[in-house]
Amino acid sequence: MIKTIALIGSGNVATHLGTSLQKAGYSITGVYSPTLLHARELAGKLNTVPLNALRQTDTTSDLILIAVPDRFTKEVSEALPKVPGIVAHTSGITPLSALNMHPNHGVFYPLQTFSAQRKIDLPEVPFCIEANTPAVENELMELAKSVSRNVNIINTRQRIQLHLAAVFVNNFVNYLYTVSSELLEKENLDFKFLQPLIEETTRKIKEINPEDAQTGPARRNDTTTIEQHLKLLKDFPQYRQLYELFSNQIKKKYHHE
Amino acid sequence: MIKTIALIGSGNVATHLGTSLQKAGYSITGVYSPTLLHARELAGKLNTVPLNALRQTDTTSDLILIAVPDRFTKEVSEALPKVPGIVAHTSGITPLSALNMHPNHGVFYPLQTFSAQRKIDLPEVPFCIEANTPAVENELMELAKSVSRNVNIINTRQRIQLHLAAVFVNNFVNYLYTVSSELLEKENLDFKFLQPLIEETTRKIKEINPEDAQTGPARRNDTTTIEQHLKLLKDFPQYRQLYELFSNQIKKKYHHE
Repeated sequence: MIKTIALIGSGNVATHLGTSLQKAGYSITGVYSPTLLHARELAGKLNTVPLNALRQTDTTSDLILIAVPDRFTKEVSEALPKVPGIVAHTSGITPLSALNMHPNHGVFYPLQTFSAQRKIDLPEVPFCIEANTPAVENELMELAKSVSRNVNIINTRQRIQLHLAAVFVNNFVNYLYTVSSELLEKENLDFKFLQPLIEETTRKIKEINPEDAQTGPARRNDTTTIEQHLKLLKDFPQYRQLYELFSNQIKKKYHHE
Repeated sequence: MIKTIALIGSGNVATHLGTSLQKAGYSITGVYSPTLLHARELAGKLNTVPLNALRQTDTTSDLILIAVPDRFTKEVSEALPKVPGIVAHTSGITPLSALNMHPNHGVFYPLQTFSAQRKIDLPEVPFCIEANTPAVENELMELAKSVSRNVNIINTRQRIQLHLAAVFVNNFVNYLYTVSSELLEKENLDFKFLQPLIEETTRKIKEINPEDAQTGPARRNDTTTIEQHLKLLKDFPQYRQLYELFSNQIKKKYHHE
């Protein structure tokens, strides 16, 4: 059973997971970050030791949890000494096989966007677990269940697809919020005006599937409104491009144009 | 003071507004719809008379509220006899001037998406009021305040811009949900997996402005991940186009590429 965890990383994921796992009763044996200042900061919060170098990691820890930017995951894994415990990473896009050099390895991926400034309701976050043996899978499942009610066994292929879909519903949606905010600013309108509509858009798809929830000028094939909107966007060529691409795809989907 | 209202239209906006205004104490003198069956249905709900023809509208009503699809608003206004009371429409995109032939006219636009199947929390909905005289403006403000805490004077130009922005945060966002749902289906994953992320994306911008809330591969200029995602989208050329357009615009905005 996992009791002790060495934390590699000091970003938002490491901070949120480290804090929650400690609260759930796990002991954090140390925090490594390539930036010592960051390691010190998070180690301070967690009342543990900051690590100067990867080789200082307590290799007797039951779990070495790698929560670093995706592109460094493999590199960090390979820089670690061989450890008898479990090595797991938190990356959405890194295959399980990136940790192959360790006899016991797995994935511990929380499907959520973490920001320094925001508290996340971890019990609702879907955790995606994958491991190289049933025993490791079991251990990581138990660990995830100590902080979340939503724990799932997900293979690498599925996890990568979830990560891709997350870009659409989080990154791209947020960019559309930015676009609208700018459009309102032009007419001295507060972005707050859109808040109730934004919230209803989200609430709706809890009950109706998004395909059936689609409304708007393109859905109705209302060419007059679309033309009028495109005219309004003449000073925003980029947003006009987005408007056209979306409208064409929606029209095609619902009117087979 | 407005006490009696004739309702022109029987769609989602007419139904939601008619029901709420009646609850707030206003008397609905009749409901017109070009489809008599629809007029009958809504009139039944509101315990009032269905109207066979526009000329049957009770022109002594204090307000004639036109809640029909945008493109019919002007046509309906012009088909009405001249009325001594107020004529107002609920369209986001129709200018105030469309009602010019009536001595007292205004706009009563609720900025929200209404569906037949869903109850809307009307008190939170921003109402956009505009009128041809201060007296009419006042009357419509009072009317809106009887059902909402969020009542604003908004001119035609601003209202049309709000309507445009609403297409981005509602219609296009919903389409992105449809895209993700299809991407997950391909790997036998339930759309529910994305629900906590979708909700956090919305909650975040209540506190942080969307420009600062932006995250993701394009925001970080993480070309490796972007390339990998584009490969995953090879069977979805349309979604690939969306992915590229968004990523290029986000990169340009944050990295001046």
